[in-house]
Amino acid sequence: MSTSPAAVMPKALIFDTFGTVVDWRGSIIAEGNAWGKAKRVEIDWAGFADRWRAGYAPAMEKVRRGELPWTKLDDLHRMILDELFMEFRMMPAMNEEEKDHWNRVWHRLKPWPDSVAGLTRLKKKFTIAPLSNGNVALLTDMAKNAGLPWDLIMSAELFEHYKPDPETYLGAARLLCLKPEQVMMVAAHNHDLKAARKYGLKTAFVARPTEYGPLQKRDFEAEAEWDIVAKDFHGIADRLGC
Amino acid sequence: MSTSPAAVMPKALIFDTFGTVVDWRGSIIAEGNAWGKAKRVEIDWAGFADRWRAGYAPAMEKVRRGELPWTKLDDLHRMILDELFMEFRMMPAMNEEEKDHWNRVWHRLKPWPDSVAGLTRLKKKFTIAPLSNGNVALLTDMAKNAGLPWDLIMSAELFEHYKPDPETYLGAARLLCLKPEQVMMVAAHNHDLKAARKYGLKTAFVARPTEYGPLQKRDFEAEAEWDIVAKDFHGIADRLGC
Repeated sequence: MSTSPAAVMPKALIFDTFGTVVDWRGSIIAEGNAWGKAKRVEIDWAGFADRWRAGYAPAMEKVRRGELPWTKLDDLHRMILDELFMEFRMMPAMNEEEKDHWNRVWHRLKPWPDSVAGLTRLKKKFTIAPLSNGNVALLTDMAKNAGLPWDLIMSAELFEHYKPDPETYLGAARLLCLKPEQVMMVAAHNHDLKAARKYGLKTAFVARPTEYGPLQKRDFEAEAEWDIVAKDFHGIADRLGC
Repeated sequence: MSTSPAAVMPKALIFDTFGTVVDWRGSIIAEGNAWGKAKRVEIDWAGFADRWRAGYAPAMEKVRRGELPWTKLDDLHRMILDELFMEFRMMPAMNEEEKDHWNRVWHRLKPWPDSVAGLTRLKKKFTIAPLSNGNVALLTDMAKNAGLPWDLIMSAELFEHYKPDPETYLGAARLLCLKPEQVMMVAAHNHDLKAARKYGLKTAFVARPTEYGPLQKRDFEAEAEWDIVAKDFHGIADRLGC
């Protein structure tokens, strides 16, 4: 039985960001290519991007298990990056300012083609915000660079917990003064929606089948009956009557 | 000796909201007049607005002294409002939904004439955000209703401390990953700027001489050498080269 539109209708939509709103892999490869050309070095930038992202979940897990105190994502990214600089032999070409600039590539990620137009449609009817593991400054810079029209920025940093900890989803609803079922989590990752649903939020899946390039092994399609399953943000806007 | 523009230049501007960006008194009087006309009751709406605002500082002081646990501004407003409903004999005309709607008038406050255009100019060069004692949902709704183009919403609620506690000014700088001196506090209230300067922020004063109507007794002009003193937000944009 399909859910009626009225039963689905949320008051706010909150978005996973890396992979769902922005193309982290393509953006890092593009900056890498430009940097390599300027520095006259050849590096496997796809491999570099994939290795950086591969360090992400284990780093957050250290915070979750208490092996690290609360550490914002910029700082976790830098810990991983410092190892990659050596592994990819990039060190000789860089001073501290350049290293910091590289680390902030996550502040400059480019949106998927439908992101800005789709968010702009959704914003007319709903409060829209990221709920991302990226820190507040990262998400703020990203929005300014990419033209993402968020109403507010919500980040794991505000709750000092990384998704999928319940403090993030429930904290977002609390800040919005909404019940969890009045908030819809939008993500390209089934595991994020699974957690959001567990804590009472509505769910919308959008497929981003090229997020991980040739390495992508999952999230090609919805793995549960999410409240909305759409091809892109325009599909979500269509379903919500925007 | 006047400060050079380069020395003054911040990276982000954070704004007091009630009185500085929006006209709380005029907005409450206007809603009151419309409500009174519909309900056919005559009430001194200026007196009502002034009494509501007069309860604001003492209520926050209770939180600051620990007499109340952390309580968001919507809830403090409601505590004050419930007394005013009786004092102004508004109770018989209202059900709970209407009372809640009244309490949310703070979510619907109207901006001063220069606010939206001035913020839009400033946003092109700087990160702009409120740093207000209003809670996150209040400030988010206000921005959507009034068209305030904030990059992010910062609120006392994020720090569970009300201004002028240091946790608010320093917390804002921390979330922005900036040093306090890279952040400029904009306010129509000298005491807010005094606190911001004490904790290392830059300061900009804008006069809002009609904020308190005929009751206004202070803040007609800058009472210290703030980094910028301007007539309105356009004056701040001019000084910062926007």
